[in-house]
Amino acid sequence: MSLLDLYKDDRELSEDEESEDEFVPDQASDGDASQQGAHASAANTTGTESHSAAKVLTLESMNPNIREMEYAVRGAIPIRAEKLKEQLKTHPGSLPFKQITPCNIGNPQQLEQKPLTFLRQVSALMEYTDLLSPQMIDTTRKLFPEDAIERARRNLAYVGNAVGAYTHSLGIFEVRQDIARFIEERDGFPSNADNICLTSGASGAVERVIDMLVSSPDVGIMIPIPQYPLYTATLAHVNAQAVPYYLQEDNDWQLSIGDLEHSLAEARAKGTDVRALVVINPGNPTGGCLLESNIAEIVRFCQRHRLVIMADEVYQTNIYTGTNPFVSFKKVVAQLGSDVELFSFHSISKGMVGECGRRGGYYEAVNIDDKVMGQLLKLASVSLCPNVQGQMAVGIMVNPPRPGDISYAQYHAEIESIYESMKRRAKKLAKAFNSLPNMSCNDAQGAMYLFPRVELPQAFVEEAKAKGQQPDSLYCMQMLEATGISVVPGSGFGQYPGTFHFRSTFLPPENLFDDFIDGFKRFHLGLIARYSPKI
Amino acid sequence: MSLLDLYKDDRELSEDEESEDEFVPDQASDGDASQQGAHASAANTTGTESHSAAKVLTLESMNPNIREMEYAVRGAIPIRAEKLKEQLKTHPGSLPFKQITPCNIGNPQQLEQKPLTFLRQVSALMEYTDLLSPQMIDTTRKLFPEDAIERARRNLAYVGNAVGAYTHSLGIFEVRQDIARFIEERDGFPSNADNICLTSGASGAVERVIDMLVSSPDVGIMIPIPQYPLYTATLAHVNAQAVPYYLQEDNDWQLSIGDLEHSLAEARAKGTDVRALVVINPGNPTGGCLLESNIAEIVRFCQRHRLVIMADEVYQTNIYTGTNPFVSFKKVVAQLGSDVELFSFHSISKGMVGECGRRGGYYEAVNIDDKVMGQLLKLASVSLCPNVQGQMAVGIMVNPPRPGDISYAQYHAEIESIYESMKRRAKKLAKAFNSLPNMSCNDAQGAMYLFPRVELPQAFVEEAKAKGQQPDSLYCMQMLEATGISVVPGSGFGQYPGTFHFRSTFLPPENLFDDFIDGFKRFHLGLIARYSPKI
Repeated sequence: MSLLDLYKDDRELSEDEESEDEFVPDQASDGDASQQGAHASAANTTGTESHSAAKVLTLESMNPNIREMEYAVRGAIPIRAEKLKEQLKTHPGSLPFKQITPCNIGNPQQLEQKPLTFLRQVSALMEYTDLLSPQMIDTTRKLFPEDAIERARRNLAYVGNAVGAYTHSLGIFEVRQDIARFIEERDGFPSNADNICLTSGASGAVERVIDMLVSSPDVGIMIPIPQYPLYTATLAHVNAQAVPYYLQEDNDWQLSIGDLEHSLAEARAKGTDVRALVVINPGNPTGGCLLESNIAEIVRFCQRHRLVIMADEVYQTNIYTGTNPFVSFKKVVAQLGSDVELFSFHSISKGMVGECGRRGGYYEAVNIDDKVMGQLLKLASVSLCPNVQGQMAVGIMVNPPRPGDISYAQYHAEIESIYESMKRRAKKLAKAFNSLPNMSCNDAQGAMYLFPRVELPQAFVEEAKAKGQQPDSLYCMQMLEATGISVVPGSGFGQYPGTFHFRSTFLPPENLFDDFIDGFKRFHLGLIARYSPKI
Repeated sequence: MSLLDLYKDDRELSEDEESEDEFVPDQASDGDASQQGAHASAANTTGTESHSAAKVLTLESMNPNIREMEYAVRGAIPIRAEKLKEQLKTHPGSLPFKQITPCNIGNPQQLEQKPLTFLRQVSALMEYTDLLSPQMIDTTRKLFPEDAIERARRNLAYVGNAVGAYTHSLGIFEVRQDIARFIEERDGFPSNADNICLTSGASGAVERVIDMLVSSPDVGIMIPIPQYPLYTATLAHVNAQAVPYYLQEDNDWQLSIGDLEHSLAEARAKGTDVRALVVINPGNPTGGCLLESNIAEIVRFCQRHRLVIMADEVYQTNIYTGTNPFVSFKKVVAQLGSDVELFSFHSISKGMVGECGRRGGYYEAVNIDDKVMGQLLKLASVSLCPNVQGQMAVGIMVNPPRPGDISYAQYHAEIESIYESMKRRAKKLAKAFNSLPNMSCNDAQGAMYLFPRVELPQAFVEEAKAKGQQPDSLYCMQMLEATGISVVPGSGFGQYPGTFHFRSTFLPPENLFDDFIDGFKRFHLGLIARYSPKI
């Protein structure tokens, strides 16, 4: 059985599961005005089965590519978690836990991470510009530092004072210039604002680039396994091939060039027109961070085999070890003097900024054909522009207060505090996982996740299979029901056949972290004990 | 020649034009760091022709559906306008006008329309929540009215105080409840929050629904001609058929059911699987507003022929006559007791809110199959959520300050002032157009646009054709070069064969409006004089 076949089997099983369970919440639910089952349990004005059969738009008639998409990060388990959260509100004390702990998604401000003050001050001033008027400015100065006022004025000048107007489709030019300078400072190589496009989060950028790359169902894009499911979802959406390659769990999730060669050769032999390679660095869901030497090998591999590199680098500041610093693909491409085509993605949702709800991100296009750049501009123009405050937040992320600025000390302290806390929590959670029987976990070198491996007892695996469920999905669902902790099963990301994992963020606030770990331990030890052969 | 063929000819001609001119800005430009030509004139690290030939991603290899897309609203003319704007900065006095007047896009805050104060106050407080802290609140009260403070606190409670966190993929539940109440008050029929999905502007909603509807290249969607080019662009993107029907220019842009029947029958006879009908009401680019009786006919037509209705109602509050009030498709569907499937779209970008840059909108799904609703939820979840401040702004639009609230008077006055001014400008511009030879223009009953018809002199038409250009495109480009006014040629929207139009917003500020009209008149009269046969 080849890598591809194994991966397909895995997908098919979880598709079956999800198309039934995940996105079609049962109609027997109490149907009150809660978020759960929203959109699917809605009382349609005409809702009988006989009418439904006559509808134009049905599960059968709709776009089959969308039907085949999966997105486990917001799948069955988080949907169940929403129902339990509602139950805790309406029937307190009816569950064996007091709160839902959402570790399924890297959404730090949901878990009490405070936003960066300077960013929010500047945003607020851009929202309500009367605060900058002669009538109000003296009072405003009592609430806002001078450099935030100055920055707001400067940003407003970029957009003719109107954050409520559409901007250039690629984004505000001055923000793109700031991004280019940030990239130059980071890498030591030139960057050009004209090669940068602001987007609605990095997700929007990734979707757009994949969309551009896929001209037929024969086109394939290499993706890591485990991967962030945006990639398989988007490939399913545009009806292209996911060409998987495995990350090496026993080598801190580095890439093996031998595996890449093997996977590519196999896919091309089958007639797949493999055009690009996705690398997520630091890794989601793995938490791994690639060594510079490994990146150089990957660049050479792509150059050799004519593959566009898609470098998902949204966790570039979430780095927790001295041994594996972040090195950008752009830098390595420049160092090697390579003309390999590269798209690099970044976002305000991750790092210490954590502004997920603001939807800001960008891509840098390197060595991309000029006419293709024109087409990317056209594609951006149909969506008009990304939201302006998201763009402005990218600008602040790449050009924060500098030493000597009034807000520097606070900004720096906030960043450090979030960073140090994440680092502590990453270590602590990995240690907890590694202390348990039937579990092992690589330390997080980067990102916001751990991806522990669970040795599930054979009896549990068989029980899951008898129920037609993925064993790791059943494990995670039972974890949720027992503890209120919501994580994502490894099968949602892909994993080496026969292994089981889950992804957990390490974002719960530190004051709750011990409770979180205790709850998890009780669940895991209880399950192992119940299903292990009695001696 | 059939409607379809005529439309295709039109598209093909303008595609040729655009793939050369519009989205591949010429490489001979001065290449300075200005916005124009961005993304295409970028200095790639390796940019020679010989290298380009070896690239993986090229105009030839890329997704052909994207290559075929057109989007004239941000096409050749606005790109040229950006270049001229830059020239005015770098070489003042070098052009026959002092400023660029961007009438190509409904972007009111770009043209000095002031944002609604209450909306911005609430947004600012949600951005910088320290303003609500006990330490700051007394000072904050000097700058913000109490009801804005209260609203900000309420909104923040919806999202656990975190506008920086992802929300539910369909959007914040309480905002969806407010939308449902707004729809109920507007129409007098029930609406359900679970049937509402917040999106990144109405554009994102339209794209998503079309994407759902299209399962193969045989699927067709009926669109008005003239149309807003988002529709043809999205249909090209998903490789589906645009099935055009003409709006009746000589009947205030109403729909003729006979034409709909004819167009549908013809498309179905050719094997097109026609599944939906798009109606833009009030009309873009036409400014027409459908009578309730006409809407009822359209609903019955769609019911009879099993078509999903896509009602683009983003201009629902931009209504300027007593004779043609806005009536929603939802209301008419409910009145008729119809079970026709309907998606209705709304946005914060238009109306008197005009918050284009914030990217907020929603769709309401009516009579849609439950399982399809589940799939729509899944599709939304891959994009995580629309930006939170955009969602909150939708909430304020549908639930503004009420009589008795502190901010009511100001909110109401701001809305009225914007509304009355738009109405005046609409009338004044239509009057100016109608006062000129070789021009005629329906009054704007709604929306933000006029779509005057221009009788171009035969000599001009022939000159354009000799240049391989659409006559209306050449007319609009010459208007830009002579006056700095940027409008969109009718061929970007589609028009009855042999007729020529352009779309102009009536958004320039009133104090500049006379200059704008004078400049246009001089250009038009000069052109007509130059090209008309000498007597």
